[in-house]
Amino acid sequence: MTKRFDFQIAATDGKARTGTIKMLRGEIRTPAFMPVGTAATVKAMRPAEVSATGADIILGNTYHLMLRPGAERVAKLGGLHAFSGWDRPILTDSGGYQVMSLSALRKITEEGVSFQSHLDGSRHMLSPERSMEIQRLLGSDIVMAFDECPANGVSRDEAAKSMALSMRWAKRSREGFDSGTEHASRAALFGIQQGSLDEALRRESADALIDIGFDGYAVGGLAVGEGQEAMFGVLDYAPGMLPADRPRYLMGVGKPDDLVGAVERGIDMFDCVLPTRSGRNGQAFTWQGPVNIRNARHAEDTGPLDPDCDCPVCSTWSRAYLHHLIRSKEILGAMLMTQHNLHFYQSLMAAMRDAIAAGGFAAFARDFRSRYLR
Amino acid sequence: MTKRFDFQIAATDGKARTGTIKMLRGEIRTPAFMPVGTAATVKAMRPAEVSATGADIILGNTYHLMLRPGAERVAKLGGLHAFSGWDRPILTDSGGYQVMSLSALRKITEEGVSFQSHLDGSRHMLSPERSMEIQRLLGSDIVMAFDECPANGVSRDEAAKSMALSMRWAKRSREGFDSGTEHASRAALFGIQQGSLDEALRRESADALIDIGFDGYAVGGLAVGEGQEAMFGVLDYAPGMLPADRPRYLMGVGKPDDLVGAVERGIDMFDCVLPTRSGRNGQAFTWQGPVNIRNARHAEDTGPLDPDCDCPVCSTWSRAYLHHLIRSKEILGAMLMTQHNLHFYQSLMAAMRDAIAAGGFAAFARDFRSRYLR
Repeated sequence: MTKRFDFQIAATDGKARTGTIKMLRGEIRTPAFMPVGTAATVKAMRPAEVSATGADIILGNTYHLMLRPGAERVAKLGGLHAFSGWDRPILTDSGGYQVMSLSALRKITEEGVSFQSHLDGSRHMLSPERSMEIQRLLGSDIVMAFDECPANGVSRDEAAKSMALSMRWAKRSREGFDSGTEHASRAALFGIQQGSLDEALRRESADALIDIGFDGYAVGGLAVGEGQEAMFGVLDYAPGMLPADRPRYLMGVGKPDDLVGAVERGIDMFDCVLPTRSGRNGQAFTWQGPVNIRNARHAEDTGPLDPDCDCPVCSTWSRAYLHHLIRSKEILGAMLMTQHNLHFYQSLMAAMRDAIAAGGFAAFARDFRSRYLR
Repeated sequence: MTKRFDFQIAATDGKARTGTIKMLRGEIRTPAFMPVGTAATVKAMRPAEVSATGADIILGNTYHLMLRPGAERVAKLGGLHAFSGWDRPILTDSGGYQVMSLSALRKITEEGVSFQSHLDGSRHMLSPERSMEIQRLLGSDIVMAFDECPANGVSRDEAAKSMALSMRWAKRSREGFDSGTEHASRAALFGIQQGSLDEALRRESADALIDIGFDGYAVGGLAVGEGQEAMFGVLDYAPGMLPADRPRYLMGVGKPDDLVGAVERGIDMFDCVLPTRSGRNGQAFTWQGPVNIRNARHAEDTGPLDPDCDCPVCSTWSRAYLHHLIRSKEILGAMLMTQHNLHFYQSLMAAMRDAIAAGGFAAFARDFRSRYLR
């Protein structure tokens, strides 16, 4: 019988690791990139198309789904998997990050966050207990603890207070998750390390989380504007504070070179809107670096987006056609750019997994940067 | 060797006919519905997805394509087929209808129409010769003669003058088309009957076109706001004025019940933006009639859009999910609604072809109306 959650590391290379998470709804090859499916859809992609890019798991947003169509409604409709037609693992965030970045009139107390919906102004409450309940109603496979993500540049005192609150919420998240017995027997719960850019706070947060005990651990509070150098600075020590035998998930990251640098520092999982959102806006990711397809120099270019890419978009359509579609605001432009970008991201993850397995990650990373960051 | 253009009628039932048009790029089963691919894409659909709905041919718009990306540019990029990835027949309209409905500051003379682009205000000229040249540059398989389409409700005198101008332009279109020797050896040219709602003018127009000689004949100037009853009134006599051994194409039509009534009156080909445009706006076509998926009553409906439809959308997703996607303005909503609607339209055409072949078209039409027009 397949276990609820089983992480096996197949190979390590320096701090980089490759392995497999086995869950009841399928296997997740790590390092893994999770496309973001905010509102029960990876934008402009059918589930089978997402799967064909190589994605093993997608992310759903608690904040958006609780507001529309509503967690109780999704549960009534059979859960997020049946609703959306994606039958493999789904990780849901806790809503903690987006309630801070998207909602209005929010008020944080020890209990949780009360806020007004950005859609219709209706009032809602998110707390560790309600976040666990919502993620259970959605039928999430990997549930994230409810936390507070402080803005970039807060004082050490504010960062410390916020982290301490997140750790108390982590404990309540664990209890809330465990109280949903049936769901807890099928799903996993991840804790989230906070502490901004402060090593001592990161250590304190890691210790608090380990004390509670989670299936996996996220590095939270990064990719909020601190820049790659500062982020890598934290990643030089933060992953090592988390249990080596558990997956480590860097939330909301990132650019292709962010992913390579983070894997190099021991990260196993990622999510980011970049390949999907940028794709819709005309930015393609290629092995030769980013390409803005709106640029006039592509208007008569019969070559593919990326000559080194074997995705259906690159084997069928020209830069000229994609340029035309994006310039004309055609939906097909968003579809094809998203498809290519997700394919590129998954190819990058696969290449990293292969390089780690072969013990050649450093050479891979060097070669990647020499082509991508020209 | 396959012929340039060969229309064979396999069966007739009353005035209704079913058959096949053979062209170098593929066969077109008639009665045929052509999805509209305005700007070198059937909106929200990949070519293979359009093909999978059962479409044998799509339509491209000369007006849009001449403005963006430009006919000369499309030619440079290998023509519309290579550019868009659709390798089966394409019919292009002449630009005559849309220059009247979309452009600004237009001026009609005997020579043609000068106008300002709705995109950037640039000035352009369309004439029979230029329209033929553009359709040749696009690499069209079925080229439409350049005509003027008068508005609904014009006087008989205006209708007569406009029709006479269109017939002079039809002659110049024929000459322009024939002058492109290589393209003319691969493509077909259709004439367009005008004459508004006047039987004598329709007769005069048909005679003028037959005198020039075309591969197929369109009934133009309908679906401009005259209503179904008036349209059917014209279709009671107009198709019979056109050669029985040539395909008859009703331009810009229509609703499912329009298609059934027009096939009943001897029409072989159709195009319309309705299944694609309405789909993006949340209207589905089903065997039980139109469904507005935005309606709150679908919010928790786990049933398919159409229980009698075997398309991938109806076999995978619920009305509740489509309701959520369309309400949330998700691109996937436009993709799935378009896919279902085009599948429905093609299934309707296939059912009509089968009914005609079996000699049961009257019963089919009666049964269709009893379910669709409840």
